[in-house]
Amino acid sequence: MMVTVNENYLLLKSSYIFSEINRKVEDFQRKNPDADVIRMGIGDVTRPLPSAVVDAFHSAVDEMAQEETFRGYGPEQGYPFLREAIAENDYASRGVEVSPEEIFISDGAKCDTGNIQEIFGQDNVVAVTDPVYPVYVESNVMAGRAGPADETGRYSGLVYIPCTEENGFIPALPEEKVDLIYLCYPNNPTGTALTEKQLAEWVDYARDSGSIILFDAAYEAYIQEDGIPHSIYEVEGAREVAVEFRSFSKNAGFTGTRCAFTVVPEELEVPDSQGRMHSLKELWNRRQTTKFNGVSYPVQRAAEAVYTPEGQREIRESIDYYMENARIIRESLESAGLRYYGGVNAPYIWIKTPEGMDSWQFFDMLLNEAEVVGTPGSGFGPSGEGYFRLTAFNSLKNTVRAMERISELSF
Amino acid sequence: MMVTVNENYLLLKSSYIFSEINRKVEDFQRKNPDADVIRMGIGDVTRPLPSAVVDAFHSAVDEMAQEETFRGYGPEQGYPFLREAIAENDYASRGVEVSPEEIFISDGAKCDTGNIQEIFGQDNVVAVTDPVYPVYVESNVMAGRAGPADETGRYSGLVYIPCTEENGFIPALPEEKVDLIYLCYPNNPTGTALTEKQLAEWVDYARDSGSIILFDAAYEAYIQEDGIPHSIYEVEGAREVAVEFRSFSKNAGFTGTRCAFTVVPEELEVPDSQGRMHSLKELWNRRQTTKFNGVSYPVQRAAEAVYTPEGQREIRESIDYYMENARIIRESLESAGLRYYGGVNAPYIWIKTPEGMDSWQFFDMLLNEAEVVGTPGSGFGPSGEGYFRLTAFNSLKNTVRAMERISELSF
Repeated sequence: MMVTVNENYLLLKSSYIFSEINRKVEDFQRKNPDADVIRMGIGDVTRPLPSAVVDAFHSAVDEMAQEETFRGYGPEQGYPFLREAIAENDYASRGVEVSPEEIFISDGAKCDTGNIQEIFGQDNVVAVTDPVYPVYVESNVMAGRAGPADETGRYSGLVYIPCTEENGFIPALPEEKVDLIYLCYPNNPTGTALTEKQLAEWVDYARDSGSIILFDAAYEAYIQEDGIPHSIYEVEGAREVAVEFRSFSKNAGFTGTRCAFTVVPEELEVPDSQGRMHSLKELWNRRQTTKFNGVSYPVQRAAEAVYTPEGQREIRESIDYYMENARIIRESLESAGLRYYGGVNAPYIWIKTPEGMDSWQFFDMLLNEAEVVGTPGSGFGPSGEGYFRLTAFNSLKNTVRAMERISELSF
Repeated sequence: MMVTVNENYLLLKSSYIFSEINRKVEDFQRKNPDADVIRMGIGDVTRPLPSAVVDAFHSAVDEMAQEETFRGYGPEQGYPFLREAIAENDYASRGVEVSPEEIFISDGAKCDTGNIQEIFGQDNVVAVTDPVYPVYVESNVMAGRAGPADETGRYSGLVYIPCTEENGFIPALPEEKVDLIYLCYPNNPTGTALTEKQLAEWVDYARDSGSIILFDAAYEAYIQEDGIPHSIYEVEGAREVAVEFRSFSKNAGFTGTRCAFTVVPEELEVPDSQGRMHSLKELWNRRQTTKFNGVSYPVQRAAEAVYTPEGQREIRESIDYYMENARIIRESLESAGLRYYGGVNAPYIWIKTPEGMDSWQFFDMLLNEAEVVGTPGSGFGPSGEGYFRLTAFNSLKNTVRAMERISELSF
């Protein structure tokens, strides 16, 4: 016996994708010092915090400067003022019942979607859509649920549900028994959405098969069309089978400010191996109170201001701005004769690479011929090969310039 | 096969201590509505953020309000400006070599000390001092390294190292082989410290036995005496065997603002079961980049300001304030004829309960006869029975009043 590393970490396929992108771009710029490269690959917001948020942030910092109003440790689950604002504005206003006590404030949906697997048993079978946000996969690799990967990066112990052109990006219910199902809708990276009816099939499946849906709704604010659920709890019966993750990152520009939340409904019970039922909310509460100490108080006040009328007006304006970029991207791709998906209810546009080109070949072509950088779809999983992601998170000016260049290419 | 909970969570002994304290205090106040209860039990700061910190916090919030200076996702490991300020001011200034790349910024030492065990193998034997900060124990229970607990709360799979009056609160080197050793000095809850020579014995032990020390230095700013190491890296050879945790919570009042950091030296290598060595820094980097998204940018700027001359002057002032409280507590306990420890290099005073009284009986007596609330030592582990913790985190006025009352009691 001696100290050893967690060997599951050694099974991780190094995700070279973003470093490989950077290497290629730097190389290109060295050879072409006058090149005016436009980056359309990064899923990060560019517009500043709303002024309502900034004002609330400043006042809370001022509170921390005075003994009478100073706040030390807050509740690990978040302050009631924020949990109540979320319950009222994100849920009750849509007719969805979520109580403040079911809402756990955190510093990021990445943390929560990465940590949630901890409260489940080691032997649970994990299903992910493919392509997929890598955190769902990698956190389960680290926990020992995924086994080794093959050369395409596919882990033997995970169930992959392909979402491609062939099935209209609608994930098919798995044929094998799965226990934990990660769904992200509107989807990163494909930019596609599920209708309420399509999502209801998954909820029914989970109810019938005794599995749990881990629903990442980080992009719900980008939904433009009716009939697309903003919350999985809009679907009947979801409270007994689904955890929901939300974030202030993409709706209010909090990627550098850090605030998110996770909803674990009271009704959600999961058995132990003896069949005794346990409240998942209590388990998550135990995890958070033991390993987390709450979000910065001024950040929670800043997040609360997202729900003021002024805050709501401002975030709507930002989302409209990004979605106008998405519209321009879609129109330009159309006129360039490229097939694409998404970009209607999400800030991501998923391009089918032209015949005979794989994701990286298309990347090289765009970089060399249009000086535009995107993300090769193969970086998001085996079924991402042959696709390419562009994002609407950029200035209008840069988006227009990038798309003018792409429109001039011939495919 | 079906979805199941992580059954290790079911082994956790519910820590009722703080809720039990609250229940007893509420009960007492209901029966004694005019009682003027003074709380001396909570390890949370009371003084506001330093003005240098507040100014930097405000400017960074202003940066987030302008498109030109807005920051989205930052590096998961923290911004170079903060990592460099720490390397320079906390380490180089003491002649200790720690590079910025070895410093990982986080939102709390609770998170880091809770998460660090993830990167080690499942079979590693964990040693903790007793009494102990519960997070070290509970995070390992959740991970399945602790086994079941007996009725005193002692987990069968952990190695407990008693720190009591009998051994002068100096932990003895374990006789069995242990792999991971949690040490917190200056210590919570006992308030005692280790000299450089005493700590060097642990470093030598770890080097000889191939174990790793997880060193929690959250209270280093309270050290008043020479010869007490502020960092474990002041001890020769520690870079090859120790991870160090630090926090802005207790030195700069960040308990509600949230910023901390963990140092993982380049030299720290841990084998897999085949004997191949792996960089622990790379494993921690992989953990953090996968499951964490960095600390709020304005909070990192606020933390950076702790290292300005004005910031340093202000935090010194706060620490002196709390340590004057500690001095008053010590003097009053002395005149009351109570034996106590700590309070010299730490904000905690560890009282030996008078003959024939256990921790909870002493709690009841102080509450009923002095209207003062502290923390029963038994809440920190089996060897905490017969002890009681008071903290120096209070106003001078309340500290003086509380101690006047205690001085009048007869033991």
